[in-house]
Amino acid sequence: MSVTKFQVRPGVYYDSVILMQLQKSLAGLPGVLDAGVVMATVANRELLDASGFDLTGVDAKADDLLIVVKADKEATATAAIAQVDELVQRRRSSTDSDFHPRSISGAVKHLPQARWVLVSVPGRFAAGVAEEVLDLGRHVFLYSDNVSVADEVRLKERAREEGLLLMGPDCGTAIINGVGFGFANRVRNGVIGLVGASGTGLQALTAGVHNLGGGVSQAIGTGGRDLKVEVGGSTTLQALDLLGRDPQTEVIVLVSKPIDPQVAAGIVAAAQACRKPVVLNLLGYPPPARQIGNLWFATTLQEAAELAVGLAQEPQEFVVAEARAAAAPYLRGLFSGGTLAYEALLGLQTFLAPLFSNIPLRPEQQLADSMVSEAHTILDLGEDEFTQGRLHPMMDNDLRVRRLRQEAADPEVGYILLDVVLGEGAHPDPASELAPAISAVKAQRDIEVLVIVLGTDEDPQDIDAQIARLSEAGCHIFRNTTAPVAALSERMRLPYRYESKPLPLADFEDGLVAINVGVESFYKSLDAQGVEAVQVEWRPPAGGKSDLMDILAKMKKM
Amino acid sequence: MSVTKFQVRPGVYYDSVILMQLQKSLAGLPGVLDAGVVMATVANRELLDASGFDLTGVDAKADDLLIVVKADKEATATAAIAQVDELVQRRRSSTDSDFHPRSISGAVKHLPQARWVLVSVPGRFAAGVAEEVLDLGRHVFLYSDNVSVADEVRLKERAREEGLLLMGPDCGTAIINGVGFGFANRVRNGVIGLVGASGTGLQALTAGVHNLGGGVSQAIGTGGRDLKVEVGGSTTLQALDLLGRDPQTEVIVLVSKPIDPQVAAGIVAAAQACRKPVVLNLLGYPPPARQIGNLWFATTLQEAAELAVGLAQEPQEFVVAEARAAAAPYLRGLFSGGTLAYEALLGLQTFLAPLFSNIPLRPEQQLADSMVSEAHTILDLGEDEFTQGRLHPMMDNDLRVRRLRQEAADPEVGYILLDVVLGEGAHPDPASELAPAISAVKAQRDIEVLVIVLGTDEDPQDIDAQIARLSEAGCHIFRNTTAPVAALSERMRLPYRYESKPLPLADFEDGLVAINVGVESFYKSLDAQGVEAVQVEWRPPAGGKSDLMDILAKMKKM
Repeated sequence: MSVTKFQVRPGVYYDSVILMQLQKSLAGLPGVLDAGVVMATVANRELLDASGFDLTGVDAKADDLLIVVKADKEATATAAIAQVDELVQRRRSSTDSDFHPRSISGAVKHLPQARWVLVSVPGRFAAGVAEEVLDLGRHVFLYSDNVSVADEVRLKERAREEGLLLMGPDCGTAIINGVGFGFANRVRNGVIGLVGASGTGLQALTAGVHNLGGGVSQAIGTGGRDLKVEVGGSTTLQALDLLGRDPQTEVIVLVSKPIDPQVAAGIVAAAQACRKPVVLNLLGYPPPARQIGNLWFATTLQEAAELAVGLAQEPQEFVVAEARAAAAPYLRGLFSGGTLAYEALLGLQTFLAPLFSNIPLRPEQQLADSMVSEAHTILDLGEDEFTQGRLHPMMDNDLRVRRLRQEAADPEVGYILLDVVLGEGAHPDPASELAPAISAVKAQRDIEVLVIVLGTDEDPQDIDAQIARLSEAGCHIFRNTTAPVAALSERMRLPYRYESKPLPLADFEDGLVAINVGVESFYKSLDAQGVEAVQVEWRPPAGGKSDLMDILAKMKKM
Repeated sequence: MSVTKFQVRPGVYYDSVILMQLQKSLAGLPGVLDAGVVMATVANRELLDASGFDLTGVDAKADDLLIVVKADKEATATAAIAQVDELVQRRRSSTDSDFHPRSISGAVKHLPQARWVLVSVPGRFAAGVAEEVLDLGRHVFLYSDNVSVADEVRLKERAREEGLLLMGPDCGTAIINGVGFGFANRVRNGVIGLVGASGTGLQALTAGVHNLGGGVSQAIGTGGRDLKVEVGGSTTLQALDLLGRDPQTEVIVLVSKPIDPQVAAGIVAAAQACRKPVVLNLLGYPPPARQIGNLWFATTLQEAAELAVGLAQEPQEFVVAEARAAAAPYLRGLFSGGTLAYEALLGLQTFLAPLFSNIPLRPEQQLADSMVSEAHTILDLGEDEFTQGRLHPMMDNDLRVRRLRQEAADPEVGYILLDVVLGEGAHPDPASELAPAISAVKAQRDIEVLVIVLGTDEDPQDIDAQIARLSEAGCHIFRNTTAPVAALSERMRLPYRYESKPLPLADFEDGLVAINVGVESFYKSLDAQGVEAVQVEWRPPAGGKSDLMDILAKMKKM
């Protein structure tokens, strides 16, 4: 038999570290079977319920502290709960006697050289605290979660305007100037700069780099939602710009949680613009290839770390062509091979937008009418819709020649991409029909024609003669799909421009002074790393009561 | 000024090669500006329309032949159309005088040793012809498209029962015993066996292998829809089983068009069961890692060819553990790191089903209630829902220890996967709390516990001591996510059993005799490759009229 007793303390706030320690202390008392000391959120009540606590009749709100004890007999449980205040008192008197300002502005006055503020107050207070830090012109490491997207967007916009970095919310880790913020592995200093919308992803990468013998320049966390459509990669773009300029950083690694494809395209454009090798580990996002220009696409965190360390040790050559204004902006791909069309689409969707197709990989790529191209279009002319009652375009060039003329007549088309598939069964001499049509088109307009020639030296068409004929017509010749995707991604990319106020490089040089607001162990960790820091003795406004807070906030605005 | 004249010939059938040649001949006549000779399908009418033919008033159905000529004056156009019959007659008399049986059964009598029949009749006749071939106990290369999914499913089920291979419909390519079917590049013979639900994908791979110095044993096309849910990879599974048994094949390559994730899991299980190195290029499917056991995941066709040739030249070691019946079937992953949880989910979704999570990558993975695991479950315990008003599980092990006990109490759980993240900010000695809890659980039940330890030798927790403590508790220790995914994919995979009648290896030995029905150039291509073959002088039943065909089909059944 066991007895469960509980106590609700309305609107009482304790740091979560204290809550954990209280819970452990109570659970360790003689005769106590289990204990919970938590804020009475729905989730925490469910967790207690799952642990076998009977919470029938407990009336408590999310703002309230709930103490619950299961013991062998009632007297033990009651006695345990009665010890809470004594335990808190004992803990307070054992903590250090350093100076602890009561406000962030007080801390800034005390340590004016502090450029970094770590914020880990409970979620419902976090946006207000972060805003206060930005008001004071300091960068924010916002560990707190449960912050609204609207608050995140607003705070990040503000930070960008001021040339400040806001990492988070829900930012688990960062390594700035060699100092770990929040959860951070100790790693050697080096030339690999990292940015990640993923806490443990970034930790796995920094630890992986260290374990492979490499070192880290900066590791910038962005918060898990930074690459969502609403936030649009705001912090990621700041970090890429910074790491691109940072003289210590030679290789950049970017890691994300699942990313929206639209956002991915913008991030990739910024990564291309870095002009340093960038290893991308975009979780769950189908990579366009293993390498395109200065971008390496990794499948796993471990592989990303290996690639980065390899690139830092043996830099690879890559071409970053100047982005140029083409005669006309759009690409039309006219494929006879379905899989080549798919592969081109898969590769180009990372770089070109908007991109349409009659064989879309994503619903928004669906071309409304296969007879009429729009913007960038990749067509599979071997699809059933085109081949009913007629020969496949690998045998009969008529359809492609007609479509080539149609596309070339569109003044917005600057690039045509074709495949020419040789071999048994295919047209005996495709170049004899395609090359004159291409020459005619190029004679009228400044159009670049890229041709993938798929074949072998044993094919009946004489592959060398086919290539020679197409080259004479002014085509660029490739032997697989990835090569023209890489070429097009360079030639066609829009000039990327970083629009925000740049982060000052001086804040990313040696030496770092910090202020911590919230979870005290983060302050202790700064201290253990030899960082000059101060802990703010933060208490929630109005004792944490939401209704009072709203009134206070309204009064401030008056 | 130009004049357009047309002629409709109801229900007249010509081979598409003849149609193409007629169109070219008419377009080449003096005074003719453009010409079209096509079956009057909606698609073809749209194409003519896009080419500037005015088809107002043309009353023709899909079964009808439409001849349309644009010329400088009416007399020229009329004269051109009048020449059609003469052109057909002239072409007929110029063709070879070989024996051409009128039926497939006639061809089989003529060449009884022919085990392979190529079928490229128009789509609406194709299912019937393929069925006739299966009736005669021959393998089918079904080039025709526009075949219904229902027909495909029925025909493939029939083929599997008979131990026959039905490649297609819409199968563009195959190389069987060194002979190219349909569109096929000429490549050297070798040890790389390929299977592909993708025509040009398979061509790019075979040509790529050849161009890199490798060679091909067999290349089996499956038709573009084989990996759709309805068809379930029927032909792919036959091909994998065959290539697994084929003594000449040392490395297998599998290429697909976009694949349904459910089907992918089944195909991957079959590939694992091959016990040969398998390179997978699953277009657009996020790879679980670069290599898992005997599986290599390629990003592009070119990379797949490079991997295959590399593996053929320098075979890599890999472990294929015996699939075993575990004490209990299900895995529960209890992560403190969100990205590690995502990476585990991404890796395991290729191997385990059904798989649920509170951070699903696909909607069907959504766990209904985060407090209750189902089947295989991967939990991110650092998600907001678990951390409101309490410390993160990297600092506070309480939540994980409770959940560990909860999972271990489920008799269907055989495997637990945990991460332990070390470093600044994290719990100072997580093993001191986790190891006893794991020991207690393992003392009661035969449960395998796999632990990913993320950290460095400089982390404050002493990583070696942490690993030692967890190992003593009976945990398997890993240093990244990919390694336990690989281990679990081997230990937990269900024994894969090939359920169909095996394809006879004898049909894949040297020497090949074939029958061609449909596009005549495929017969000429077989002839050019030195293959003994016969062309069937096929004509559509009832002259191609759909209504008559239906009556004929009904009469046959009576």
